[in-house]
Amino acid sequence: MEGREAVVTIADLGEFGLIAAVTALLPAGDAQIVGIGDDAAVIRAPDGRVVATTDLLVEGRHFRRDWSSPLDIGRKAAAQNLADVAAMGARPTALLVGLAAPGDLPVDWARDVVRGLAEESGQAGASVAGGDVSGADVVMLAITALGDLAGRDPVLRSGARPGDRLAVTGTLGSSAAGLALLAGGLADGAGGAGGLAASADLAGLVAAHQRPRPPYTAGPQASAAGATSMIDISDGLLQDLGHLAAGSGVAIDIQSGLLAASAHVRAGALRAAAAALGVPDWLAWVLVGGEDHALAATFPRDTALPSGWTPIGAVSAGSGVHVDGQARGDQSGGWDHFRP
Amino acid sequence: MEGREAVVTIADLGEFGLIAAVTALLPAGDAQIVGIGDDAAVIRAPDGRVVATTDLLVEGRHFRRDWSSPLDIGRKAAAQNLADVAAMGARPTALLVGLAAPGDLPVDWARDVVRGLAEESGQAGASVAGGDVSGADVVMLAITALGDLAGRDPVLRSGARPGDRLAVTGTLGSSAAGLALLAGGLADGAGGAGGLAASADLAGLVAAHQRPRPPYTAGPQASAAGATSMIDISDGLLQDLGHLAAGSGVAIDIQSGLLAASAHVRAGALRAAAAALGVPDWLAWVLVGGEDHALAATFPRDTALPSGWTPIGAVSAGSGVHVDGQARGDQSGGWDHFRP
Repeated sequence: MEGREAVVTIADLGEFGLIAAVTALLPAGDAQIVGIGDDAAVIRAPDGRVVATTDLLVEGRHFRRDWSSPLDIGRKAAAQNLADVAAMGARPTALLVGLAAPGDLPVDWARDVVRGLAEESGQAGASVAGGDVSGADVVMLAITALGDLAGRDPVLRSGARPGDRLAVTGTLGSSAAGLALLAGGLADGAGGAGGLAASADLAGLVAAHQRPRPPYTAGPQASAAGATSMIDISDGLLQDLGHLAAGSGVAIDIQSGLLAASAHVRAGALRAAAAALGVPDWLAWVLVGGEDHALAATFPRDTALPSGWTPIGAVSAGSGVHVDGQARGDQSGGWDHFRP
Repeated sequence: MEGREAVVTIADLGEFGLIAAVTALLPAGDAQIVGIGDDAAVIRAPDGRVVATTDLLVEGRHFRRDWSSPLDIGRKAAAQNLADVAAMGARPTALLVGLAAPGDLPVDWARDVVRGLAEESGQAGASVAGGDVSGADVVMLAITALGDLAGRDPVLRSGARPGDRLAVTGTLGSSAAGLALLAGGLADGAGGAGGLAASADLAGLVAAHQRPRPPYTAGPQASAAGATSMIDISDGLLQDLGHLAAGSGVAIDIQSGLLAASAHVRAGALRAAAAALGVPDWLAWVLVGGEDHALAATFPRDTALPSGWTPIGAVSAGSGVHVDGQARGDQSGGWDHFRP
């Protein structure tokens, strides 16, 4: 090709070439007995049980190639699954990855996705131990994460009891605000260097959307401290606490003052983003925004909260989610993948 | 809608409605401690290790909605993953399912796919324990299967030694011939009732393509009998034995006479299909056709083969796959998902 560099595509490499190219990027993890290259992986499950969760990410619906780098898409795809493992109180051990893509996808793009998956897995103490590749008209990632409970019971959505304290850890609202900045054209996929988002505050929100940082170790710590229920906040605080309330047969009461003042909410940055976008209520991002992968959990009232957890409310008899005493049980803020 | 029945789509149900509708179809399995409805599933792994494998199936590439019923698509998607678990010598315990689909997909279609997944899992002793749903422009299934080794070492692709016997179990070539009948217009998705495939022989081949029946229990049995290596035949016997030869650093010698005469090859039906399609060499389906999910394994020469396994050749020093002494090491017959 005269005048331009030839881009090597995954069709050029072929299925087995692509597998070899990405496998070379993957360090073996501590829990990995058999990795990529056989009919299946073999992973340590010292507890005698294995925690397992799976998620699909579809281009144009869960990510955009022009808004996120492949490295960030890989990190994020891993993060949301690893966070689900942590929300059971388990330590992530391994990731399995299905990658479907059009044949004209540059190999470098696929490599960077896998690098992102490997980096985020490493952050959580896990490794990419298996996978599959396929052709498809759009890029799609199917991620399965496994984890070990280390002898503790899993922390379910059904264990909250009236009288328990509600606490959160991680970050809330930043990802949704970052997405709004991208959608509003106030930032670009390169990190907002050109636009308004060049301000550190706003760039931080965009980064939170592109690279969520779930509090992986906080899940097992909450479990060890006696958490009665726990959930990964991925569809929005209200919606996910609605699942927890329904699963436990209780009412959840959030105190917005505690939430807004907590270290888990970047109030200054969210206020600045709301002002830049003309959005009236910045707290809405905190209440209905997902994808930061914060954790929410309930603890017996007399339990000392583990480090990094902040109380934001309480559990009572009844049903639904209430903010400052007002029912907010509807899920209208949440995301429905068939109604985009 | 006047004059026609309204079809309920998955967009009508929404994400949570769809999850509820399909979850109702899923019996809990013996190995399932926590199933669908929490952040993750929890599955028994009594061995202290877990076998895990994942596959993507994309509409138009791995299946066609006009050639296979949703029940068969579900069964087949489960079968190919459960067979990978069996090929490690493990007993399948659980399946995780990602389903991506357009919003206008009829709910009944999604339900039947999940029914197929559940039925096939049940055949293998496993259950559908978790999943995810997403929107997408085409139907896509991302399946992860887990399994337990029951205290035995996993049977890898790397353990074949010169002097070992090569044996197979399950069915070989029928799925590829059935696909050729469908592609050649000699059968239809309803089982070939209208065309040539109405003959019992040919209909059996079409059925083998639509509903492979992997020999799940043969994997653990081969492991217990001392198999030195094992592989699921999914890309074709030559190609998959090529992986085994390369993984073990040995040569694999197939005796075509033993293969063609074995109970694993429906020679009469394959001959009839070849005649109907004008294909010169029916044995090619056996050698390069995949998707029946037969198992191939190697055993020490002095080991009695478990019931259902038939010797078809031997392992020797060297490299590559040979048929009746002739090198057939190339993978040209195999399937590359980026070069369709």
